[in-house]
Formats: sequence, C-alpha cells, structure tokens
Amino acid sequence: EQVKGAHDAWSGWVCVLLVGVAAGTCAGIIDIGATWMSDLKEGVCLEAFWFNKEQCCWSGPSLNATSLDSAIKCKQWYSWGQMISGGSDAGSYIIGYLFFVLWALLFGMLAAMLVRVFAPYACGSGIPEIKTILSGFIIRGYLGKWTLLIKSVGMMLAVSAGLSLGKEGPFVHVACCCGNIFSYLFPKYGRNEAKKREILSAASAAGVSVAFGAPIGGVLFSLEEVSYYFPLKTLWRSFFCALIAAFILRSINPFGNDHLVMFSIDYDEPWHLQELIPFILLGALGGLFGKFFIKFNIMWCRYRKFSRLGNYPIFEVLAVTFITALLSYPNPYTRMNTSELIKLLVSRCGPEDDVELCDYGRNLNMTDTFKYSAVAGNDVHSALWKLALALIFKMVITIFTFGIKIPAGLFIPSMAVGAIVGRMMGIGFEQLIVSNPDSVFFSNMCEAPDKCIITPGLYAMVGAAAALGGVTRMTVSLVVIMFELTGGLEYIVPMMAAAMTSKWVGDALGREGIYDAHIALNGYPYLDSKEEFTHTTIAADVMRPRRNDPPLAVITQDSLTVEETESLLRNTEHNGFPVVVSRESQYLVGFVLRRDLNLAIANARKTSDGVVSNSVIYFTGHVPVNPHGPAPLKLRKILDMAPVTITDQTPMETVVEMFRKLGLRQTLVTHNGRLLGIITKKDVLRHIAQLQNQDPESILFN
Amino acid sequence: EQVKGAHDAWSGWVCVLLVGVAAGTCAGIIDIGATWMSDLKEGVCLEAFWFNKEQCCWSGPSLNATSLDSAIKCKQWYSWGQMISGGSDAGSYIIGYLFFVLWALLFGMLAAMLVRVFAPYACGSGIPEIKTILSGFIIRGYLGKWTLLIKSVGMMLAVSAGLSLGKEGPFVHVACCCGNIFSYLFPKYGRNEAKKREILSAASAAGVSVAFGAPIGGVLFSLEEVSYYFPLKTLWRSFFCALIAAFILRSINPFGNDHLVMFSIDYDEPWHLQELIPFILLGALGGLFGKFFIKFNIMWCRYRKFSRLGNYPIFEVLAVTFITALLSYPNPYTRMNTSELIKLLVSRCGPEDDVELCDYGRNLNMTDTFKYSAVAGNDVHSALWKLALALIFKMVITIFTFGIKIPAGLFIPSMAVGAIVGRMMGIGFEQLIVSNPDSVFFSNMCEAPDKCIITPGLYAMVGAAAALGGVTRMTVSLVVIMFELTGGLEYIVPMMAAAMTSKWVGDALGREGIYDAHIALNGYPYLDSKEEFTHTTIAADVMRPRRNDPPLAVITQDSLTVEETESLLRNTEHNGFPVVVSRESQYLVGFVLRRDLNLAIANARKTSDGVVSNSVIYFTGHVPVNPHGPAPLKLRKILDMAPVTITDQTPMETVVEMFRKLGLRQTLVTHNGRLLGIITKKDVLRHIAQLQNQDPESILFN
Repeated sequence: EQVKGAHDAWSGWVCVLLVGVAAGTCAGIIDIGATWMSDLKEGVCLEAFWFNKEQCCWSGPSLNATSLDSAIKCKQWYSWGQMISGGSDAGSYIIGYLFFVLWALLFGMLAAMLVRVFAPYACGSGIPEIKTILSGFIIRGYLGKWTLLIKSVGMMLAVSAGLSLGKEGPFVHVACCCGNIFSYLFPKYGRNEAKKREILSAASAAGVSVAFGAPIGGVLFSLEEVSYYFPLKTLWRSFFCALIAAFILRSINPFGNDHLVMFSIDYDEPWHLQELIPFILLGALGGLFGKFFIKFNIMWCRYRKFSRLGNYPIFEVLAVTFITALLSYPNPYTRMNTSELIKLLVSRCGPEDDVELCDYGRNLNMTDTFKYSAVAGNDVHSALWKLALALIFKMVITIFTFGIKIPAGLFIPSMAVGAIVGRMMGIGFEQLIVSNPDSVFFSNMCEAPDKCIITPGLYAMVGAAAALGGVTRMTVSLVVIMFELTGGLEYIVPMMAAAMTSKWVGDALGREGIYDAHIALNGYPYLDSKEEFTHTTIAADVMRPRRNDPPLAVITQDSLTVEETESLLRNTEHNGFPVVVSRESQYLVGFVLRRDLNLAIANARKTSDGVVSNSVIYFTGHVPVNPHGPAPLKLRKILDMAPVTITDQTPMETVVEMFRKLGLRQTLVTHNGRLLGIITKKDVLRHIAQLQNQDPESILFN
Repeated sequence: EQVKGAHDAWSGWVCVLLVGVAAGTCAGIIDIGATWMSDLKEGVCLEAFWFNKEQCCWSGPSLNATSLDSAIKCKQWYSWGQMISGGSDAGSYIIGYLFFVLWALLFGMLAAMLVRVFAPYACGSGIPEIKTILSGFIIRGYLGKWTLLIKSVGMMLAVSAGLSLGKEGPFVHVACCCGNIFSYLFPKYGRNEAKKREILSAASAAGVSVAFGAPIGGVLFSLEEVSYYFPLKTLWRSFFCALIAAFILRSINPFGNDHLVMFSIDYDEPWHLQELIPFILLGALGGLFGKFFIKFNIMWCRYRKFSRLGNYPIFEVLAVTFITALLSYPNPYTRMNTSELIKLLVSRCGPEDDVELCDYGRNLNMTDTFKYSAVAGNDVHSALWKLALALIFKMVITIFTFGIKIPAGLFIPSMAVGAIVGRMMGIGFEQLIVSNPDSVFFSNMCEAPDKCIITPGLYAMVGAAAALGGVTRMTVSLVVIMFELTGGLEYIVPMMAAAMTSKWVGDALGREGIYDAHIALNGYPYLDSKEEFTHTTIAADVMRPRRNDPPLAVITQDSLTVEETESLLRNTEHNGFPVVVSRESQYLVGFVLRRDLNLAIANARKTSDGVVSNSVIYFTGHVPVNPHGPAPLKLRKILDMAPVTITDQTPMETVVEMFRKLGLRQTLVTHNGRLLGIITKKDVLRHIAQLQNQDPESILFN
C-alpha cells in the first residue's frame, strides 16, 4: 500500500523528468541537424562532410560567425560555386545560386512528402491544436510517435530549406508528443485524460524552455498561452521539466557557444528615459504588424481551405520554397538563416566585428571607442537598404508560409521582422544623436560630444519582442523570455513598454492572436478562458430545445424498452441523453452517454439471456420482478448519477465560468427539479459568437 | 458609452499603477526608517542626527559595510559608549550594551502599544490572513488605512528593536492594504469583492517584489502561495504592478547600492557536480528545520492562545525583546541587523574585505588569489564558533518571536538560519578540499593544488533557500526569487536541488507550511487548493442533515406566513435557507439568505400596508389574489433562483473541486430533483479533517 502510494507520488516526477530529457534531446538533435543541412545549401566540408560550417572551420583561421562573407576565410569549407566553377566569381555565384535553390527545393519536397505520407498532423506550429487539446478536446494521433518523428525530421528539412519559418513553435509540439508518449508508461497519467493534460502542460513549458533557453519563460508561456486550466500543483513539476530540458540541451550544446539560443545578448549598457519614445513606437509598429499579419494570413489560409489550392499541398510547398529561395539568395540578410539574422541584428558592434552593419567611422585612438556611438559609414547605409528589402520580403513571404503543410513556427520570422525594424530605428536614432550631441534632449546620453551611448542592438531586441507580442499577444511570458535572453532586470522596462504597447495596439484593432485565429479557422471547440463574459443573458436563452423545437430526447428510468431506445439512438445524433423519472414529471435522474448505451445494449443482446427487443431498460436500483414479461435490462451502472445541472435562471456569466473552470462538455438545465433542456459547449460558443455580432452558424465544428 | 468602456478597461491598470507606486514608496520609507532606527541603537551621527551610519560615514574615510567593527573607522559617527564614557573600552562596552537594550525595549514597547491601541490586525506577518481573504473570506478592517499606517510604523520599530524578525512578509500585508485602499477609488473594484481580490493578488506580488527586488518571483509567489484562484488575465497586471513597485523602490534607493535588496550577490564562479551533495544535504537540513520550527512555533502559539499569557501581549513583547537584546549584543553576528548578517554570509571574500570570515592564509603573490580557496585562518575558526552560537540563538528565539503581537515576518530569520548553516558547511567543504586538493573526488575543482575554486557564499545562499523552503514550502517562487537575487541561470540548479529536497523532506514529516499551520491555528475557513482530494466518499456522506438529525430547515415558496418565517429565523442559525415547492414534494426552487430575509421582513413590517404576522410570503412569480386574507408579501426579488446544486451521488472529489474553483460557500444536495440536504464549506473542511484522522470538532471556526 505504501509502496503504491510512493510510486504514485513519484510517477509524476519521473514522468516529467523523462519528458524533459526527451524534449531536450530532440531539440538538440533538431538544432544540430538543421544547422548542418542549412549549411549544406551553401557548401560542404570536404574533410568531414558531417561537420557544419562552424565545426568545419574550427581548426582553420578563426571564423567570425556574424560576418557575412565568411566563406573565403575558411579553407576547409568549400562552397558549391568554388568546388565546381573552380573559383571564377560570376560562375561561382551562379552555381552557388543554382545549388541553393535546388537544395531548398529538395528539402522542401522531402518535408512536404514526409508530412503528407506519414503524419499529416505534423504540419504547422501545433500550438493552436495543443491549446485545444489542453482545453479538453481530443484529437487522436495528434501527439503520437509518428507525428513526433516526422515533425522532428520535417522541422530540420523545413528550416534548412530556408523558408521563412522557425523551429521554436514546433518544439512545443515535439515536447508535447514526448509528454504524451511517456505518459503511457505511467497508468495514472496514461489512462486519465485530465492527468495527462498536466504532463502536457509541463511538456509545453519544456518546449519553450529549449526553444529560447528560458525555463521560467517556458512555464509562464505554458501557463498564460497554452494551458487551459493550470493546477498550481503542476507548476513546480512544469518548472522542473523545463529546467531539465534546458540543461540537457545545454549539455548537448548545439550552437557551440554555451548558450541555449543563438541570439542571447550580453551587453549591459544603460538605456535612457527618452529612449522609451522609440521603444513605445516600436511596440505600436509591432502591434500593427501583428494585426495585419494575422488578417492577411487568415485570409490566405481561408482561401487555401476553400479553394482547389488545398488539394495540392506539396505543389504549394514547392512553389513557396522556390520563390523564397530565388528571392532570398541575392540579399545576404535573407540568404542567411533567420536565427543568425536575429543574432546579427541584436548584437552590438565590438572590435572584432567587421560586418557591414558595424562600419562606423570610429576614432580608434580613443579608449573604449566601441562603447560609444559613431557616425555610420557607407556600408551601414547599404546594409540599411538591404535590410529594408529583407523586411518587405520577410513580411510578405511569411504570410504565405505560415499554414503550408510542413512544420512551421512563427516566433522566429516575426521576431526577425521586428528585429529588422528595431535595428533600423536604432541606427536612425543613433545617427540622430551622433549628429546632434549638443541637443538638450540628448544631453544625458552623451558624456561628451563624441561620447554618446546608444545600443542599436537593444532596439532590435525590443522590436523583436514587439512584433512577437503583436502576432501572438503574449504578455508576461514574452517579457520573461526576453528577460532570460537579455539576462538582467536592466532591460525589462523597455521590453515591458514595447510588449504593453504592442498588445494594446493589437487588441484595439482585433482581439484575437494568431493562435486563436487559427483555432477559429479550423473550427475547434475552444472556449477562450481569458475573455470576460459581460452580458446579462441567462441559461434559458441559450439552452436547447428552443421554443419551437421538438422536445428534448430523454430516456425514462424504468419504462423504455430496448427497441424504443434503439430507435431513439438511430433517430438522434446526441452524444448523450438525460434520464428522467417519467416522461410526464421530467424529474432528472442522471445522464447516460450514447457510447455506453450502444455498447451495453449490444452486449446484452449478445450475452444476457432473455434480453429481447421489448425488454424494459431499468436505470433504477430496484427492478420489479415480472415473471411473465421478458427479462429486464439493468443499466444503472452506466448511468452518471451526478450530472452537472443548473437552473434556467442561472446567468450565462456563471454558466460560462462553470464550463471553463470545471471543463464541462454539457450541462443540464432544470427548473424546480424538472428537466428543461441542455446546454453544450458548442451552444455556449455559438451564443458568444452571436453576442459578438457574428453569425453563429458561420462557426464550424470539425 | 465608449468613454465608459475605456474607463472601465483602464481603471484596472490605473489602479495597479497606483498600488505599485504606493507599495514601492511604503517599502522605501520603511527601509530607510528601519535602517536609521537600527543604527540609533548603536550610536548617533553628531553632525546630522537624521543620517544613518552609512550616510553619516559617507564623506569620512571609506567604510566597508560588511566589516564588523566599523565604528572606529568613521569619525562622524559616535557610538553611545564613546560619547558617554569618553573612550574607555570597558565602560564604553557596558554603556553601549545598556543603550542597546534600552533602545530595543523602547522600540519594542512602542511597536506593541501602537498595535494594541490602534490596529490589532497589524501584528504578525499577515500572509495567512491574506491567503484566507483571497480565498473568499472577509475580515473587516484587516486591510484598512489604520492597519497600513500602524503596520508600517510598527515594522520599522520591530526591526529596529533587533528582534529576530523580518519586514519582508509584512510588506505583502502593507501592499495589500494599499491595494484595498486604492480599489475604493474605482467602483468596478471597490464594490465587487471578486474584482477586488484581483487587485489584492497584484498587490501581494508587488509586496514580494519590493521585499526581494524580484518582480517575477513576486508574481509567482502571489500565484503559488497567496492567491486562491488566479485569473490569468490578471497575471499581466500583477506583473506590471510588481515591476512598478520595484522601480519606485529602486529610485528611492534605500540601501544606497543600486540594488533592491541588501543581499543580492554578484559572483559567478562555476559550481561543480559533486557540490550537489552538500547542496542536497542543505536542502534536507532546511526541510528538517522547517518541520521543527513549525511544530514548536505552533505549540507555543497554541499555548499563548489558550493560556493567560495571551492576555499580556505587551509584556510578552517586552520580555522577548529584553531577552533578544541581552543575548544578542555580545555576539557580533546576532548584534548586527539580520539582513546585514545574510549579506555578510552570502558574499564572497574579496581583496577589500578584512572581516573575520575572510581571514584566509592567501598567497598574495599569486594573481587572482581571491578567486581561489585558501587555508582558513584563526579568525575564521573563531567566526565559526560565534556563528554556531548565533545559529542556536536564532533558531530558538524565532520560535518565540513569530506570533508576538507586533508586525513580524519570517522570511529573513529563516533565511538567516539557513545562511549560517550554509556558510558553515561551505567553509567546512572548502577546507576539506584545500587540505585534499589531490583527491580524485575534487580533481575537477582544482586547476592546481593551490587553485581550487569553491564559493562558501553560494552555500549560504543555497542554505537560505533551503530553510525558507522548509518553513514556507514555497517552490517555484522560491527558486525564481533566488534566481533574481543571484541574477543568472548559473546557480538555478543548486537552488532547485535544495528547494526540492527541502520541500520533500518537509512534506514527508508534515504537509503543512507555516502559513497553513497558522490558518488552521486561527480557525479560518480555508480550503486548501493544492492538496489533492483522493478519497471515494460521496456528497450523501457529508451533507447535513445526517441520518438522525432533525430535517433541514426549508422555506416553502407559497405557504409560509411571516410569523412562521420569523420563528424559523429565531430558532435556527443558518446563514440561508433553501426554498422548495412544498414541504411534501421538496422540489428545489431557490435559496434565500438570512440577511436578505430579515431585512425584507423588517422593511415590509415598517412600510408595506397590510403586511401582518399571518401574511403569507410568496416566492413565486404569480401571487393569487385573496381579498379576504391579509396582504401577501412578495419576496421573489430576494430569491437566488440559480443556487449551485449537486446530486447526492456526486463524488466528494468533484464537490471539493467545485468549492475551490467556483469559490462556493455552500451547495444544495438533491436527488431526482428533490432537496435532500446542504453542504457548506465548513462541512467540507470537517470532512477533510476527518479523512485525515483528525477530530473534526477540533477545528475551530472563528
């Protein structure tokens, strides 16, 4: 008994430990694979083809990871152009271009075909579906092992194809697959959907934890964004799971830099109060971007869903990949991996950086010259033009990319858009100050006319937060993730200002985040737990049957025959039936599920002696003995004697709260003890849609 | 209409902004006042008496805040001994001692009298009561302005009296008072208890945020420990509130070191895997300490409650203060402020520290000598002895201090106990390594035999976390607070290991944390929302009336007279009555509160024409016209037509969940539509106590 208790208590911890280890391992493998394959588009390491570019150049002359034309610096690494054309510049460029496009098409096609053939559920980011699953809806196979495998492989391929997508969102799906698979090792979790959801909550925390190296942010993301009802006792376990995953990933060290993510920053220059103006502006731009991105993306997804395009998913992937590859090669900022682009944009210019973006006219005789801002050189201006083009390209292509039938996350592309805007604004603000160091407005930012401190990389980070906030409408978790990326309370106020502005601007234009929009698009029965229900309708307004409808299909507790019940089952489609004392009195006894009723009758027909079509079904405890009639069928054991009931006068505010907090699928409506009707989750969703002036019938339920 | 909507949407933000500003300001004032008054016990700044010691010595020769006998270094600061005895060492010591005790007694007496006379609710930490309030119980005046004022002043006095208590817990109470007061400015929050609790949740986050300079930790503390039901939409606002409070406090800068707390650390030496053994050991010790502290403290509090001691609160405060002051003066580690002690223990020894604890035999010719461990000198050994005495003293005196009738928090004393144990263990482990640098077990900790890296301060930090975890059973919030204090993911694994061990060891010995124990001691009706209910009882087992009890007092909807109702009200003490169709059928119509019924009848007696003792009370919509009888009394408007009902077969697991999640006070039990009984929150609490083999009648409800 005690052993069983201890096993029971420990199984949750062991389960989340395994999930954490698995999530961290998957993330590590995917990161390594994606980096290697991304580099394969450009060239190959001749000495050891299984090395990626960075590993390949390890032993050679030191390679700066952020420099743009690093290929020439590393002797062991051969670009396809070099290898085939033998060095001529124009030929090398064309061959490089050709290989880039071909590899991208190959990766894209592979990813799309794997998804199409083996695991259709592996496409997209998975977060809308996981939100729905955690709200109590069951999608069979969505978190299965095939989905896990194909999603992992597909993510590597999709990222390597150079598409405008990220692997951070899908990490959540991968981690939840691990959670689902491991929960079957522990009957307490595998057999109980509610308990399994606790593991899935922890797993999604681990997913974000490995995606951003932010265990606390991951837990808050799971709490705020993904989980529907988050029991506090699982908070601790989720945190443990997230931490384990992060440390497994750190031990694997996929980026070789002791950081969990490619773009964590390490500067800590102060920011100044007047910089809040551009930060808030960035927030507003992020909110606007989020709104328009969601709008156009949903328009395109709706078009795909209802047009012939939806029938050719592989063709669509290939088309998007082709266009992306074709347009992104010429511009170095789109050609590079999106994470690397973000890393480049958020970093500051140090003495070792000789990239375009760091071409400043610095006074090299001054000590600490890299601490201060300087006049931008020509390369910075040319970089700004390229960044502007990259921005437009990323904004447009991401709308068409998010939703194609391969694994695709949205965090990285939206952060990249925000980071580009942020860096451009940062450089603009920097140049403004450098050219007016004596202005009163900037006086506290400059120690001397040539010693002004402003960090354009911070603007990129703030911009990334703002854009991500606009698209996903994350709040606390966004700020905490950014806090963990920047590693200090120093920058938490800029992040907070940008995230708040972004959320407010976005919400003012339309309440839904991208995940909620996709949930609505797919017609999942998801009852938002954050929106306040402020109307004054009552249960009687919502329940079925309506005034002119036929009466509710009910079962009496001791008078219906097997045949009558079977005909009821045939003629209706309800998932369950209320059981009442008698058809006249309608006093409620309980609720019986269609599934159980079907099964029990079929079973009885097969095995019980004497149960025939006109046997009476009894749901009562006491069954009268009738020696002349056919044998009765006792079904008390399948009767749910504790259905949740409300009265017809209950305010809908209370009803919605009960649906949310108790995770109900339906509730029975009574008046003075008599059954009046039923309210299902779909009725509630339709009612809410109606109150928001949407056509309730436009809401689809798949 | 739109203006109203916008005001409605903004009022929450404005309210938490005000609360954050107020909480930060209060904390700043209290910190400054407590520091000044604490120093007043030792001496006075002759040039400007309103300066505390640190400010006084600002302009003089540089004073190291962690050195123990700093008095001699600062010329402007006169200790009482110096001033009166004029320099003789023995006399100076005795006079210093005398003044120390006298000031302590004065401060203690003032604090106790203020609490006794003006605001009895200002005593203790306030967290148990706030937990209870947030669970839906109302304690009038507990969060009022007098409590705020007296608690703030009392905290300064109590801390200055040198008692073994902290001001961190009471900060939560102070912040909640601010939250309560400001919520009255916004009718949306002031008039609705449920909405007000959202503000109080945010306020308690702000309280912890200013106590530890940990806004994220504050939000998680509010979420995990204090708040009963935490709607996710308030998470973002709580975070905002916590951040505002932290930044207001940082602007006030009470400690003059740009940190929000006195003991944040800034080293980042690596830790090694084998150090997990002492860390886990510290966790186990922390759990043990927590268990025994709770046990003895509750024993003493129970004795106080039921003995004559409870009638002399001021005498008790004076006695405890006298003993504390008398015993703590001789030992420098108990004489100093507890926060300063923690700061000293968690810091590392740098080149500028010449305190006892840093007396190592360092090789000053080696570069970076302070990075490595060295053999301890004599002063370290003497410090260890003093620390051991301080440990025993703190452990014992805190048991008697927590619960006396002045504002008193528990965070700092328990952290101090843990930090002492941790530092001692750290030094022990350090000396073990230094004397065995060649051991295989320590090989990875030493670069060379004289270059071993181990940070005893980290052990103190881990020990503090472990002890705090053992006493309060905090988990995530504890780790996050420690993460924010240490400022890096580097040390999160040691903290996590210690917190987990501490929680497990503590829970193995007894599930209750100190706050829950005090809630139980005070008999607040608090239904723990974290404990799983795993028993298989059903509602019929718990509801009243029991089998042999008299039947439930009910009101019929259309047959009871005013007189009969009044007699029912006189003869029963229930807070409400179910209304049924008729006494025979018992079909449930609704629920009416005693308060409303009393008021309605009294009103009708006064004003309505013709309502006399034998008027019939009608709860129905339609009232029959009876020209001969007395005028009827229509009370449909006071009838709650949507009471929460369950069936008698409902598992108690579900019932408990409904009580927790819906915040119920009672639910009605029906069977086939007929009323059977009622279950109140107290019935549920008694039932849980019974299942845990406690005497249900031993649970008091005040």
